Amino acid sequence: MPSPVSVPVPVPASASAASARPIGVIRVLTSEDPAAVATHGTAIEERYGLPTVSRCIPGQPHGIHDDDSEARAEPKIVDLARELADAGARTLIISCAADPALQKTRQAVGIPVIGAGSAAAAVALGLGRRVGVLGIRDEAPPAVCAVLGDHFAASARPDGVHRTTDLLAPEGPAVVLEAAAGLVASGADTLLLACTGLNTIGIRPLLEERLGVPVVDPVLAAGLLASYAYGG
Amino acid sequence: MPSPVSVPVPVPASASAASARPIGVIRVLTSEDPAAVATHGTAIEERYGLPTVSRCIPGQPHGIHDDDSEARAEPKIVDLARELADAGARTLIISCAADPALQKTRQAVGIPVIGAGSAAAAVALGLGRRVGVLGIRDEAPPAVCAVLGDHFAASARPDGVHRTTDLLAPEGPAVVLEAAAGLVASGADTLLLACTGLNTIGIRPLLEERLGVPVVDPVLAAGLLASYAYGG
Repeated sequence: MPSPVSVPVPVPASASAASARPIGVIRVLTSEDPAAVATHGTAIEERYGLPTVSRCIPGQPHGIHDDDSEARAEPKIVDLARELADAGARTLIISCAADPALQKTRQAVGIPVIGAGSAAAAVALGLGRRVGVLGIRDEAPPAVCAVLGDHFAASARPDGVHRTTDLLAPEGPAVVLEAAAGLVASGADTLLLACTGLNTIGIRPLLEERLGVPVVDPVLAAGLLASYAYGG
Repeated sequence: MPSPVSVPVPVPASASAASARPIGVIRVLTSEDPAAVATHGTAIEERYGLPTVSRCIPGQPHGIHDDDSEARAEPKIVDLARELADAGARTLIISCAADPALQKTRQAVGIPVIGAGSAAAAVALGLGRRVGVLGIRDEAPPAVCAVLGDHFAASARPDGVHRTTDLLAPEGPAVVLEAAAGLVASGADTLLLACTGLNTIGIRPLLEERLGVPVVDPVLAAGLLASYAYGG
């Protein structure tokens, strides 16, 4: 609803024509199974009603779980981002709580790029003041801590879990719940899931029900921020 | 969908029974007109389909526009927050980009409290890397800058605007657009509206259309974060 104004401004961007373009979801866990690759995109589609297209980087069947695997992933993420942007994606999500290659990707493409880690931290900041971070490494991701600042309360890693694929074991939910309960017991009023594999195993409703605190899922948080741009 | 686990945890909170409880919207601009008080809540209801109840603090017909007016508003905001929480609100939004009394309010009530300023900064962090802040004071709100960190690009105040009510003048949209265009020209890739009165005048679609960058509205950003807690 443009008002009558007469200020010289740049050429308008067309918002309406872009509304059907999908969110490109970059998975950092390699899989040959299209349904597995699409898991996070499907979660976003179901929750926000937005179209997604999902792709995974090659050669990393255990995802990103240490500095070396993160370094190897970075150029692959940038390449994949360029492909998705060229194919018409409107927004990109790097679906990893470490925000790997986020700045490089933003520099490489001309569309918004959302990192699941900083998105989760941003949403958590809106919901609580002592954020407990649950992940697969002993230290919380720097990208998460940078946004949380003084609101970072503590981090925890489920017992025996070192890689995202470890979460898929039968004991996965139990050890995650135990670690999460420890964070709440030590004073966290909000939990942040700092591994997108915790979305894959669908643990959030269980944690919220058992622990009574908001639990921020990084995939859904990224989808939430992406949805802002689609709201017209 | 609880999985079979057997870890001792706190008493569960009931999520489903709480789903119909409204978002309490605290306005810091005093008005006797219920429709004017409800403006921000209505915007949230229309965009996110969530119930809201809006109330304003007393005795501040020009809102919060300097340190003195902010200090006077703080205890009133805390009192109103307690009333809304006692009346059954599920989440509260302090609908002012300065996040007045945010920490005090969070300490006073047992429900999530979202500040429009930090919510807008959080959403902006998800959308861009050089955030231009448009407000009614020469300095960007500290609550906004604290979240933006290194991603704060610059701030601007529309010519002749010093109070939220100044935005309602006939020349309001033109001077806002001029200031916003200046921020984009100096390198901002995302704009953050650091006065909720900019929601009231409905300027966001115009700015996005004319300037071609995402524009984060603090009321809608607060509603977006609040909506996360309602998503089940």
